[in-house]
Amino acid sequence: MSLKGFSVPLSPEGRATLTPLPPWFYSGDLLVVDFEARPEVVAAVLPPWLEPDSADPGGCTAFFADWQYASETGEERLDPVRSQYREFILLVNAGYAGRPVSTCPYMYVDKDSSLARGWIQGWPKKLADVCITRAAPLQSPAAPRVEPGALFAGTLSANGRRLADASVTLEKVSENPVYLGSRTILNVRYFPQLAGGAQARPAVHELVRSILSGAQRTEVWEGQASLTFFPAPDQELDVFQPQRIRRGYRYSAAFRVDDLEVVERLV
Amino acid sequence: MSLKGFSVPLSPEGRATLTPLPPWFYSGDLLVVDFEARPEVVAAVLPPWLEPDSADPGGCTAFFADWQYASETGEERLDPVRSQYREFILLVNAGYAGRPVSTCPYMYVDKDSSLARGWIQGWPKKLADVCITRAAPLQSPAAPRVEPGALFAGTLSANGRRLADASVTLEKVSENPVYLGSRTILNVRYFPQLAGGAQARPAVHELVRSILSGAQRTEVWEGQASLTFFPAPDQELDVFQPQRIRRGYRYSAAFRVDDLEVVERLV
Amino acid sequence: MSLKGFSVPLSPEGRATLTPLPPWFYSGDLLVVDFEARPEVVAAVLPPWLEPDSADPGGCTAFFADWQYASETGEERLDPVRSQYREFILLVNAGYAGRPVSTCPYMYVDKDSSLARGWIQGWPKKLADVCITRAAPLQSPAAPRVEPGALFAGTLSANGRRLADASVTLEKVSENPVYLGSRTILNVRYFPQLAGGAQARPAVHELVRSILSGAQRTEVWEGQASLTFFPAPDQELDVFQPQRIRRGYRYSAAFRVDDLEVVERLV
Amino acid sequence: MSLKGFSVPLSPEGRATLTPLPPWFYSGDLLVVDFEARPEVVAAVLPPWLEPDSADPGGCTAFFADWQYASETGEERLDPVRSQYREFILLVNAGYAGRPVSTCPYMYVDKDSSLARGWIQGWPKKLADVCITRAAPLQSPAAPRVEPGALFAGTLSANGRRLADASVTLEKVSENPVYLGSRTILNVRYFPQLAGGAQARPAVHELVRSILSGAQRTEVWEGQASLTFFPAPDQELDVFQPQRIRRGYRYSAAFRVDDLEVVERLV
Repeated sequence: MSLKGFSVPLSPEGRATLTPLPPWFYSGDLLVVDFEARPEVVAAVLPPWLEPDSADPGGCTAFFADWQYASETGEERLDPVRSQYREFILLVNAGYAGRPVSTCPYMYVDKDSSLARGWIQGWPKKLADVCITRAAPLQSPAAPRVEPGALFAGTLSANGRRLADASVTLEKVSENPVYLGSRTILNVRYFPQLAGGAQARPAVHELVRSILSGAQRTEVWEGQASLTFFPAPDQELDVFQPQRIRRGYRYSAAFRVDDLEVVERLV
Repeated sequence: MSLKGFSVPLSPEGRATLTPLPPWFYSGDLLVVDFEARPEVVAAVLPPWLEPDSADPGGCTAFFADWQYASETGEERLDPVRSQYREFILLVNAGYAGRPVSTCPYMYVDKDSSLARGWIQGWPKKLADVCITRAAPLQSPAAPRVEPGALFAGTLSANGRRLADASVTLEKVSENPVYLGSRTILNVRYFPQLAGGAQARPAVHELVRSILSGAQRTEVWEGQASLTFFPAPDQELDVFQPQRIRRGYRYSAAFRVDDLEVVERLV
Repeated sequence: MSLKGFSVPLSPEGRATLTPLPPWFYSGDLLVVDFEARPEVVAAVLPPWLEPDSADPGGCTAFFADWQYASETGEERLDPVRSQYREFILLVNAGYAGRPVSTCPYMYVDKDSSLARGWIQGWPKKLADVCITRAAPLQSPAAPRVEPGALFAGTLSANGRRLADASVTLEKVSENPVYLGSRTILNVRYFPQLAGGAQARPAVHELVRSILSGAQRTEVWEGQASLTFFPAPDQELDVFQPQRIRRGYRYSAAFRVDDLEVVERLV
Repeated sequence: MSLKGFSVPLSPEGRATLTPLPPWFYSGDLLVVDFEARPEVVAAVLPPWLEPDSADPGGCTAFFADWQYASETGEERLDPVRSQYREFILLVNAGYAGRPVSTCPYMYVDKDSSLARGWIQGWPKKLADVCITRAAPLQSPAAPRVEPGALFAGTLSANGRRLADASVTLEKVSENPVYLGSRTILNVRYFPQLAGGAQARPAVHELVRSILSGAQRTEVWEGQASLTFFPAPDQELDVFQPQRIRRGYRYSAAFRVDDLEVVERLV
């Protein structure tokens, strides 16, 4: 077959594919709220290969991220509608082979190409609207600078319902920050089998780890944070309602995704 | 594992899943343009198991569809934002084992749950905005009734670019209509393997056929039609620019999807 | 000045205008919930020229409407993205010169051209997402036919928050229905004056009545209904939380708007 | 009347209004392309009180702007969906009383509250999707830093059609930049009269100037630029197709709008 591309749709020129092969380049701003949910709520979303984190069984982190992306050709830079997207990531603590890790039970994004890359890497993305305060270089009541007292907010909505509201008020540069990747992330790559129905084993069901390079971070600022989840009939985020908010963070990051490691495989 | 659901995300209650298991119920209105593209353009998108349709090698059909969906619980009926979606389907003629079939190289939809069901069934959906004239029961310059002379239009746009414009002017009830399913549809279910990069074989690569039941159609009206494709850097639809428009159709349909048959499997 | 058009932007050809002059043609489906709010809540939104309806001071009606529109040229029919829009209308009872009327305190729509026509006619529209179950001609769990037992739902969301959910279960053709226009509607046409700030009198502040012709309705079906409003920081709909739901209705309508009558003028 | 608010809808608490009274605070990033259109195209969009700029009759500037906004209460900072919006502004050269000015024939924005503030100030906004490359602090192929060689792009789409594409490649800090406000801007505040139809004089038709304070700018970078307009049936932007591109600019700005001055009044 001479069809080209990495994801569907494969096509003669490979331009129609939702995503080409890595490397995938990312640059973005992240608003982070580290918090504790009820440990049984965290335990209930762990995939087969992971156990609760005995040292911190209710530990969770919510990320609101405002990304720009480019493939190796970089053509997305001339068409920012294809480069830009925003997402919400919930990571929960887990243990794997005695080591502390994180895993992502729920994730939301506002662009199909990012949803496709997510599924391919084990991020269980659905579509949603995510909004995140942007930092500005000039002082104004309309936008914060990155400085003590600055207020950053993040919101998540899907199917016309608000799912999460968060805020972080910056205090200082953090000496021991929580950031995306501060714990190893093991996700579940999953693709169902329809033929055979409920009895069928999934076509893909494996524990994976993304292989990144070139990770950079700005200073991470920290401060007091708030986070509230709201119920929706087609979501299960609200059971993670924070029992205790630990700390909020705000920083910028850049990295590339190169490959994926399959850690465990069920099928 | 006690996680429930059929697609990602799996969750404790199974409410968060983008789609539960079939049966999936559909009811919708379809605007159809049957046309001829250049045969080499059709041949270039055929997957490995299919050959050109020697009797009609350039035959293609474009569908603009306005759907309502329900799962077995029917809960979507109380929340139409989760029930309603619109899509564009391009089917091209092919041959399989000497018999005429159709296959879908490109498809677009405006809802994540339908995109998920599509990928699971071998429909290579991307996100887009689809608009389709609705029929009305009262006479008005603002909306057509289903009657001779009525004008129905369909449009497709993605990432802020118009990709297709179509129109059908109804003449009469068709005696030999082209409709969704008037030829057997064989699609490619495909899910890539990221681990290992360009050398990796896809995780799922198979020729499939959806198993439907309870298919109903209203009378199918036919008439003169127009269809134009426009170029975009991230799409390859415009090479299908019609060489000849055959006929347009308009009707309503309902059916359920029950299961999937794997016809050929590469991996 | 040779600039053409009716609303902004005026332009050399008049094609850029958000709306040309009437006649404006409309055809649509309406889901209606007639209910009672607290009378003081209704009284609090009445404009200067209107008094409470002494016979039914808490009477309100919520409309979820799925429209197609055409101007006199009818060019929108070939580009349904410009023809179609959905809206939510809250009408409240009032009295004017001793006669029962309705007035619209809050209204939401999903298209700029309709927002412009609304402001010009005294409908105080804001942008929102409105979803409404569509009727289908075929029997399916995915969509109702217009028949006893059929369930229709409507939802309203703005800025990522659900503002209203409604449903109507059809019982029978109504002999005494509530529909859009079953009471005279008097609205406030209002456009503020910025020069001079808080002390400035509005540039336009008048009580108006739309002049329609050619109004048609299908049979109006009625049945049991539900309606719930939800709070939001930038909305005041939820104070209208129904104290009693009277009845729900569902029908299709078509009409044209020809002109506007100024009933009272403050400035 | 005890109804509160500045624009529609007026309401008991004043929370529902699309916009409160100024001061209005803005902070944003701007991508600017200064260019020449055919002088007769510019002359054709000038309002009654303005004449062509004899020194530079084809001079035009396109702005792609990514804003955050706050009212005096600043409550939008906790709900960024209400604070953030993006817009496209076309300014054309004109003369008024012998002095060089600019005026805005066409403008597009993606949020209703900004559209309302625009109409109130004489900016003839319609809804559209605007995308603009964001600057990042870290080096990455995915996003530019503000430095020589950095590529920034802007796009404009409405009703599913691409209307404009632009890019600026930064070279150096500009010594004589074109920025929003580098020429006095006189706009037409216009609100039509529907009562009486085509014979009616508009309700508001005046030449106005916004009164700002606290204007700040970062360094303005300049570089080579591109700008292309595309046709659409409901737009007239494409007649401004650049005959010559002068220069592109990129900077951040903050200011507040306090009031409006009426310079000339027709009605």
